This record gives sequence, structure tokens and C-alpha cells, in this order.
Amino acid sequence: MFDVKEALVAVLARAKPLPARLVTLSDVLGLILAEDIAADMDLPPFAKALVDGYAVRASELVGSSPKLAIGEEIVAGKTPTRPLAIGEAASIMTGAPIPPEADAVVMVEKTRRDGAFVIFEESRVAPGQNVLPRAKEMKEGEVVLTSGTWLNSARLGLLASVGRCQVLVHPRPKVAIVTTGDELVEPSEKPGPGQIRNSNATLLHALAINEGAEVEVLPNAVDEMEILRGTLARALEFDVVLITGGVSAGNRDLVPAALEALGVERVFHKIRLKPGKPLWFGVGAERPAGCPGPLVFGLPGNPVSGVVGFLLFVRCALARLSAREPQSAWMISGRLTKPFRHRGDRPTYHPSRLLEANDPALIRIEPLEWAGSADLRTVARADGFAIFPEGDRDYTTDEIVGFLPLD
Amino acid sequence: MFDVKEALVAVLARAKPLPARLVTLSDVLGLILAEDIAADMDLPPFAKALVDGYAVRASELVGSSPKLAIGEEIVAGKTPTRPLAIGEAASIMTGAPIPPEADAVVMVEKTRRDGAFVIFEESRVAPGQNVLPRAKEMKEGEVVLTSGTWLNSARLGLLASVGRCQVLVHPRPKVAIVTTGDELVEPSEKPGPGQIRNSNATLLHALAINEGAEVEVLPNAVDEMEILRGTLARALEFDVVLITGGVSAGNRDLVPAALEALGVERVFHKIRLKPGKPLWFGVGAERPAGCPGPLVFGLPGNPVSGVVGFLLFVRCALARLSAREPQSAWMISGRLTKPFRHRGDRPTYHPSRLLEANDPALIRIEPLEWAGSADLRTVARADGFAIFPEGDRDYTTDEIVGFLPLD
Repeated sequence: MFDVKEALVAVLARAKPLPARLVTLSDVLGLILAEDIAADMDLPPFAKALVDGYAVRASELVGSSPKLAIGEEIVAGKTPTRPLAIGEAASIMTGAPIPPEADAVVMVEKTRRDGAFVIFEESRVAPGQNVLPRAKEMKEGEVVLTSGTWLNSARLGLLASVGRCQVLVHPRPKVAIVTTGDELVEPSEKPGPGQIRNSNATLLHALAINEGAEVEVLPNAVDEMEILRGTLARALEFDVVLITGGVSAGNRDLVPAALEALGVERVFHKIRLKPGKPLWFGVGAERPAGCPGPLVFGLPGNPVSGVVGFLLFVRCALARLSAREPQSAWMISGRLTKPFRHRGDRPTYHPSRLLEANDPALIRIEPLEWAGSADLRTVARADGFAIFPEGDRDYTTDEIVGFLPLD
Repeated sequence: MFDVKEALVAVLARAKPLPARLVTLSDVLGLILAEDIAADMDLPPFAKALVDGYAVRASELVGSSPKLAIGEEIVAGKTPTRPLAIGEAASIMTGAPIPPEADAVVMVEKTRRDGAFVIFEESRVAPGQNVLPRAKEMKEGEVVLTSGTWLNSARLGLLASVGRCQVLVHPRPKVAIVTTGDELVEPSEKPGPGQIRNSNATLLHALAINEGAEVEVLPNAVDEMEILRGTLARALEFDVVLITGGVSAGNRDLVPAALEALGVERVFHKIRLKPGKPLWFGVGAERPAGCPGPLVFGLPGNPVSGVVGFLLFVRCALARLSAREPQSAWMISGRLTKPFRHRGDRPTYHPSRLLEANDPALIRIEPLEWAGSADLRTVARADGFAIFPEGDRDYTTDEIVGFLPLD
């Protein structure tokens, strides 16, 4: 049986960045660029005013309160019709091109108007003041963003300014969620005897949305082979398939059999982990148009097992498909606020709260009272999971343990 | 003229959480709950098996390799038809109700089958083992989530399990973006003489989406009073209006006049801040159905001024409308990696990169070479803005300055 790290290595070995695709600019926030982006023109395309005011020859502003004739008015979107004459200042708006012969702009707040003239409060103006020279931001042909860049808001603005309305990116992974189980009813229904509401679909949908995936919840598949196979066949058209239930050792757990019948190659089944041991992982056949085979996760049906399986494995796989670096789940650690008794031969992920500490380096972890893998309510009060390695041990207050954050 | 803190106080004084509204469960991730949520039934509604295996009386498993007759098979979604007989074990699946008289479940992996009998590898089984008692997770009527809770994935799962398909939340703020300027062309067009592409719409759209807003970009409004008023009138139906351009001191800057004519009450215009000084802020009239008046931000047209204005003021306003606590922009500080010469009577927000440090308490800040408020390219290379207070000063390497993060 794999341990958590072996299982993660096996998952990541099969998770490659999705083939790059042209996506509309308004939908690429948070994605990874898959091409170099070059400027298609000089920016700014002309020397432009950075403030509202008067375009001048800096050398003409000498003495106290220098005064110039007001020439052309240059508004944004228009070009000057003639060079600046000697003894003249052009009224200019932010963003407008400065006229030939002008070399500086004086802010309107530092001037006052006197009929057809303008009087300047400051007489020492440096050439270039309040002017953005042509091509100062970028030159035509220059690469301004390189392949592999994470697209944040400023980079989207930059793409717009070089005229890219579509860019080549690693697209959002498409995730199908398939819940199984005859005992499940929709959240809108009142469960009858022996039934419970389906919380897994909502939970996994939210977890996958948080990772930037496009998510579709397929209808709950009852524990009948034909229905299950039909639903799973549809799910295998997605990049990632998340199935809950039907993977533990009970004799009616049909999911592994259905998946293997559909050509999904099993990579592992069961991990040394609590909760979440029955996790099943495999890879489907390559899809049309060179799309890689879907990554198929059979998560246990108990919701907390599903959360832990998602956080440890699915989250990293989605990051890799998106060409992002998977965040290591073992980076965070902190000190226990109280003793904890651990029993068992599997590492345990126990719902816990983080308590504020004055020193950010000293995170404090409070394990919560918890009724086990079906008890989602406790996880809803938690910030994540304290990690207790396998083996019986009585932990004391202030001992340092690892922590897997939830959101 | 307000300084940054005075302006932020003025904005937050007018930003109240939006009135609570019923929203569908699949769309409330990241929002703040506006009601207490009670369980509508006991959960689990029956004592249930936590593993696949055999439901037993714990007291009957004594001696080495105890053996019991296999009774009823209880699958998930079905209820037991009779109590467990003496000397009997019921085959049971994870999630199924345990039969009356049974008090523990033994994992199938710790048993082996022998015809109509099952033989147990372990003979010391505690009552309650692998059983989740009825109502252990929650009791009918008990409050499981309180008003004011931030809805993460686990809490969405919990809402589904108590049957709440719609919940009362503070909804996502609706944001209208209005760009102004005769010089702007769409990113898909090639700018003619004196023109530049509109990058502000893309930039502000992404910034507002990052804060969880619903965003609509209205058509660019040219600098003509009638067109501008029409567009702004439509924008005032939203919770927040972001206008770029048209607010500096130039005589064709019509935005403040148009807003005031539309009944938007000006709160301030201009802030002691660089870049971003011309920022205009006001509040529109109350809207139908008790919706508060829209918050109207007139941001400067230079893209970097708009980014800084958004990060300092709009981001905090959107958080408050969503009933989230606005994050203070002054929390982060770090040491300069090189000297920096600051000149000017306004605090300056200078695009900078964060460099990794071994000690997370020692963030290192590298100010980037920057051509001013129209130079978005440099911001696209930055992680945020180093903050230099007003006044002329030559900063030295390792001096500590504040930092405003970008994303």
C-alpha cells in the first residue's frame, strides 16, 4: 500500500500541463501563459502628457512668473496640427501627444490664465518633465510577457494594451463530479429511512472551483453497473473525474470494476492514510484531438475522507494540469495547544483550528473533538488538519506537528 | 486635501454590508452568511457503519478467531429488516444503518468468510467501534453555522447536508466599469494617431473579479456630456461604479460635473497620493427596494493610478459591502534591497518586487525602474508597491518601508 508521498508522486507523474489553447482575454485571469507576448507597436506610440496642463519648451521658462501665449488646445485622441511656436504654450490634456518642439508639460495647478496668456508659478522646469517619451514603456517587437507567466490583473491590462484579445494559455481543467450511492438524496429532499443527503457534490464542486477548475456535477449514479458505466463513460470526456463512494472493500462497490471495464488503467487503490484510505486512482485512455487521458480519482464516500483526498492529491493534480507548481502540503507546521492521543498504524489528518499567535512563526494548532470521517460539521469549524504520523503516541502541549490547510 | 487614511475612513464610513438576499447554494462560495443555520433533522439520522464489514455485538467476539453466522446483508440506502440475532453478524456497507442490537462494526479486511459464517481476526472489539451514533454530528434544531460566517467549501457541504439549497447571504457587489476618453480604442483595434488602446477596462475587471464582485464593463464613454450622462445614469444602478479618466483638472474633464448633475454627492476629490492624486469619490442616491446609494469612484485615467486607487480604496469598499473585514493595506513591510531617492510632497506608491528571504519575517523589497503612472509594463513585473512617505529623503539599503501587495 502506498503512503501519501508515494501516492502523490504517482499522481503527479501522470499529471501534465494541459495542451495550450487560445482563450479570450476576459477569461484568463489566474491562468499560465503558454506563449511569449511581443509589443505590436511602440508604447506610448507618441510622446505624451502625463498631466493636464501646458506643453512648453523648458528653456523658455526663465525669470519670475514667466508668461507665454496660449497656442493650440490638444485634447486626448487628437494629434497636434503644428509644432509649438516660439513664445507659445499648448494647452494639453493627460494622455494627449505633445506637439513637436515641446519638451515638457507644466501641471495646470501650477499656472494661472491671463486672457490669451498663461503665467507659470514655477520657472525651473526640467526637459522631459511630465512627458512619457515615445516607446518608453515598450518598443515594437519587444517581448513583454514570457511563456510560463502567471496572469494577474496587471498582466491582463498589459495584454489589452498590446492588442491581445485572445492568448495561448494552459486552460482551466474541466472536472466532472460523479457521486454514487443508493442512499443519497438531493439536498432539496428530506431523507427517508436509511437515506442521507448528498453533500459530496456541493463540497467537491466548491473545492475544485477554488482551484480554478471548470466543474460539472453529473447526476448521482446509483449502485447499478449499467447506470454507473453510462455515467462514468460521460465523465471520462473531462480532464479530471472525481467519483465519490463505491471504492471501499464492500462487495457492492462497483466503481473500480466499472472503471477498469471502461479502459481506465488503475495506478493505485488504497493509501496508508486516515481518513481516506480507500482512495482509487487511475488514468483513462487518451481522448480525441491529442487530449491526454483523464485523471480519475475514486474518493471514499465519507465527506471528510473526500476532503482529505482532494487536498492531498486532487489539488496538486489540478495545479499541475494548469501548469502551476503544486503547493507542498507539508510546508506548514505549528505547536499543539493541548495533548493529543494518537493510535493507529496510519498517519491521521485530524480537523483542527489555527489560533492566532503574536509571532507568525509560531502557529498554534488546536485539534477539535471529532466523530470521524462522516463528521463534516467539525471540519466546517476547522481551518485544516493536524497531521499525526503513524504509530501510537501521546503528544504533549507545544509539540510541533504538520498542518494541511483547508482553503 | 485628504491623505490616504482620511480618504479610506471617508470611503468606509459610506460602505455598509449589502442587504442580505437568498442566493442559491452553488453561488455562495466565499460569501458571508446572513442567518443562523439550524439542523432540520438529527445527523446522522441513524447509527451508521463507518466502514464496510460486519455489524456485531462486541460482547460476542471473545476467544481466538471468533466465528459468527452471516445474517442480513445491509446495503447503503436500505434499512435493516430485523434486529441482529444472537450468534449472528450482519454484512454491512459504509453509511448503512446498523441493525438493532448491534453495537460495533468490524472492517471486512479484518475478517474472512467461511461459507455461511464469518471468522474474525480480532477478538477485542470495543462497543461503538466504527459506528457513528445517531445525532452525533448534529441534533435537530441545533445551530450549526452562525450569521457572519465566511462560507468555505466545507461549510457549503454542511449546508447541503442540512438541506439548505438557498441561504441568506450578503451578495456579491455588482460593479459597473465606465472608461472615458476620446483617445481610447478597443484592444482589438490598432490605435490611430493620438490614440491608445483601452487597458483600464480589462485591468479593473480583473481586479474587481479578484475581490468576488460581479462586474459589467459598459461601453467606453466619449468626452461628450450627453453620452457620458447616459452611460453614468445606467452605471448608477450598480452597487459600485468605477469610472476611469475625466477627473483631473483639465477643462474637458466632464465626469465630476456629470456625476453631480445625476445627484451623486461628492465626498472628496483629490488625495495626497502619488500616483492617483485626482481620485474622485461620491455616493449616489438611494436606489429602489432599499438598496443603498452606489459608491462612485472616479479613478485617474493612467492605468497605474487606477491600480493604486483600486487597491487602496475600492478593494476595501468591496470587502465591506460583502460584509468581510477590509484588510489593512499597511500590514506589510520589508527592507529595501537598494537605495531609493524620494522627492515630493506626496506619499509615493512605487512598483516593486518582493524577493524571497530565508526568514519570512524579513521581506526584501526591490523598487523597479519605472516611467510613471502610464507605465503599466513595470507594474506587470511587480508584486506590489513600496510606500515612501511624503517629503524628500534618500533611503538606504535595508531601510524598512511599507508595501501594498498587488494580487
